[in-house]
Amino acid sequence: MPLPLSLSSKVAPLPAVAQKALKAIVGSDALLTEPADCLPYGYDNSRQQALPQAVVFASEAAQIEAILALCNRHQIPLTPRGAGTGTTGATVPDQHGIVLSLERMDRILDIDPGNRLARVEPGVTNQTLQLALAEHGFFWPPDPTSASVCTIGGNLAYNSAGPRAVKYGTPRENTLGLQAVTGAAQTIRTGVNTTKGVVGYDLTRLLIGSEGTLAIITEATLKLTPLTQARQTLQASYRDIHAAAKAVSAIMAQPTTPCALEFMDGAALEMVRDFSDLALPPEVGALLMIEVDGASHSIEQIAAEVATAATVEGLIEIHQAKTTEEIAALWKTRKALSPALRNVAPKKINEDVVVPVSHIPRLIDELERLSAQSGITIINFGHAGNGNIHVNLLLDPDDPLQMAAGNAALSQLFDLVLALGGTISGEHGVGLAKRDFVPREIDPPTLELMRAIKRQFDPNNILNPGKLFTYS
Amino acid sequence: MPLPLSLSSKVAPLPAVAQKALKAIVGSDALLTEPADCLPYGYDNSRQQALPQAVVFASEAAQIEAILALCNRHQIPLTPRGAGTGTTGATVPDQHGIVLSLERMDRILDIDPGNRLARVEPGVTNQTLQLALAEHGFFWPPDPTSASVCTIGGNLAYNSAGPRAVKYGTPRENTLGLQAVTGAAQTIRTGVNTTKGVVGYDLTRLLIGSEGTLAIITEATLKLTPLTQARQTLQASYRDIHAAAKAVSAIMAQPTTPCALEFMDGAALEMVRDFSDLALPPEVGALLMIEVDGASHSIEQIAAEVATAATVEGLIEIHQAKTTEEIAALWKTRKALSPALRNVAPKKINEDVVVPVSHIPRLIDELERLSAQSGITIINFGHAGNGNIHVNLLLDPDDPLQMAAGNAALSQLFDLVLALGGTISGEHGVGLAKRDFVPREIDPPTLELMRAIKRQFDPNNILNPGKLFTYS
Repeated sequence: MPLPLSLSSKVAPLPAVAQKALKAIVGSDALLTEPADCLPYGYDNSRQQALPQAVVFASEAAQIEAILALCNRHQIPLTPRGAGTGTTGATVPDQHGIVLSLERMDRILDIDPGNRLARVEPGVTNQTLQLALAEHGFFWPPDPTSASVCTIGGNLAYNSAGPRAVKYGTPRENTLGLQAVTGAAQTIRTGVNTTKGVVGYDLTRLLIGSEGTLAIITEATLKLTPLTQARQTLQASYRDIHAAAKAVSAIMAQPTTPCALEFMDGAALEMVRDFSDLALPPEVGALLMIEVDGASHSIEQIAAEVATAATVEGLIEIHQAKTTEEIAALWKTRKALSPALRNVAPKKINEDVVVPVSHIPRLIDELERLSAQSGITIINFGHAGNGNIHVNLLLDPDDPLQMAAGNAALSQLFDLVLALGGTISGEHGVGLAKRDFVPREIDPPTLELMRAIKRQFDPNNILNPGKLFTYS
Repeated sequence: MPLPLSLSSKVAPLPAVAQKALKAIVGSDALLTEPADCLPYGYDNSRQQALPQAVVFASEAAQIEAILALCNRHQIPLTPRGAGTGTTGATVPDQHGIVLSLERMDRILDIDPGNRLARVEPGVTNQTLQLALAEHGFFWPPDPTSASVCTIGGNLAYNSAGPRAVKYGTPRENTLGLQAVTGAAQTIRTGVNTTKGVVGYDLTRLLIGSEGTLAIITEATLKLTPLTQARQTLQASYRDIHAAAKAVSAIMAQPTTPCALEFMDGAALEMVRDFSDLALPPEVGALLMIEVDGASHSIEQIAAEVATAATVEGLIEIHQAKTTEEIAALWKTRKALSPALRNVAPKKINEDVVVPVSHIPRLIDELERLSAQSGITIINFGHAGNGNIHVNLLLDPDDPLQMAAGNAALSQLFDLVLALGGTISGEHGVGLAKRDFVPREIDPPTLELMRAIKRQFDPNNILNPGKLFTYS
């Protein structure tokens, strides 16, 4: 729930000595201290917000070291921030202090196609990088929906993936090394410039997905993948989710992995039927959007193989798109969904659970039961190839009874997902939103080790305190 | 250098109370205490050895918890061990204590093709797993040369890769989750059962490659890859290493990544010319072995694309093998190398450095200079697609002058590799052999954080003490 704005203005300013020191580090054009200026840096896409006491824009790693040293001296919490597109409140400064914006560290330092790597600062947007890489015939696989504005630093902090992860992996599989400043204001270098390397512990992956609680990434060496020549899109409609899920399993059991394998359940299709002009026969109960890529000479065959795997009992129809226009027409169904959802329930809860692919039908069945029980409309879609389902609970946040029912349903959803061998977050992360549920997934000794690691990187608990898990 | 055997017998036995407790935990048929029985568990493939005070064979995780609790109470060092095929001394109990053999924990617990995963105990050999997976149409990508005997636990402990890593990655890219017992005798569960998951820190990758210094892996959930339908092998010969390296860069810059891209330098070919009956024209100065895989319908085209990329100035000839016999004939050149090397220099130093692919020619040039300077024959071959070069120094260990020159050359090699942006180990790891060189690659604050992490997992420094880095 958003904090009332009136509360925000009661936050005390930073001590004058700290303000002065910050100004000396970054200059006055890189420091905001007026509440009205700071407020836009106090929220993300989670609908939570809090007022930072200052916003600082770093332009180089040395400044970040100095800022963190200052924070340690004065015990000021620091929240790092990319573009603020996260959905869990991980960049919301709920303990006030300083928001460190990385948006000005936005240089692509090197693109090295011969070695399949790029070095970037954290503030580069995903899209800017992809455009620059495309000129060399490469891409970086992670492709969150917010790619046009979200930053590489944010992608790394959350291990944000997107549809392509089913074939190409998440940031953890596509990052070679990092430079970072720890909570103790120490600069560290992790990983290597090569695709193999086993000297010392893997701190690269430890930092990726740590939501800014261990260190601030100041530079990343990313592993690049060559762009494929050709792509084709298939839309397969099924009688029900069971048939669609069977198709997902069949597709994932054969050698050709699609570069996107997205699904929409019956409730999602109902939504699109009402809010778009797409023709969807009434007997369609679930839809798969399948994208394949490969060499031009083999793309037809690849598409045919995947289409064969997708042909299971309960299939109603497969459309194959070959031209840009046909592809756009097919994706229209999927893309109509988000505006439709926003239209119906602007304040929906959008969850991000993952279950092993074979358990998707069970999950959807249970969600239908939960929906009937609670009276809450639940719409499901997502990255079926990874078992990553975005579960949307359409709630009116101004209705306390409905909110209570929604929270009870969420709690049951998480228990169900864990019972099915899944995880409560596939790509959105924990932040503030799921923090209290983490102990359901991670057992006490493992969680205690994570806290112990946090203490090594950030002994004074300066960096993004209280995010990811409670820290004591 | 091996310890003299006479030293070994002077190791005091474990305290009687500890021996009795071990017997109570695992039973007398799973405990060795006689030096003659223990000795075979005191060496690996590094030519180092030391006598453990006891060898214990665990058959379940609960026993490992109890053994580690005992070690903590009595401050007994414990060295975990798979098949002992490592080359760096990481499983050599140089501080004596207990060797914990995982060879009896060799069950494949689950193969789940629908979810592309397998759960295994650490003592399963790589080959046993691959054979079982093949029945389901899958494989696990890591394929060290020792696959027929080495264990999955060992593969994970070293992040051992092999040729296929160029296309399919190392264990870090192919493992979903782990169960492990920390040095503090706590059982932890890391990671997930799915290909996405961002709840908490990535302890899975932290344990992979940690060489048994943090925790003992008792179960691993592995990510499976479908077997491809077809494979083809190409052998390309070049005038010199510069031409071959240019071909490697060209191959790695196009979309079709080979599933093996191996190289042999001129000195390696000289060796094979002398010790095999293969016909290699005298003008050949470097050789690439290229394997491609894919769907049957496209394998010809894939091979043709890679052959085109491999056709750079300085190419002498490309052979393409299509039948099993032709493939075997082509690999004969590469496979003749190891016996030839053993024949000439049974006690060679085999290094495992990595440089960015574009720097391979520079590395080989400098190695030639180093060879001329030191009078030591240096033979280079390896996984060119990853820049992972096995540098072999042919030394007589009984000649102290040559050994001194060899060690000086090694030191220069490591400096060179680091100056080229590389790493001193790609897949063999650090163990005892490279421990003293680690501070050249990892800077003090980063190394100190690794030590701090070690202390959290293993506060009494029980687990494989002194391996990977010195611990204080």
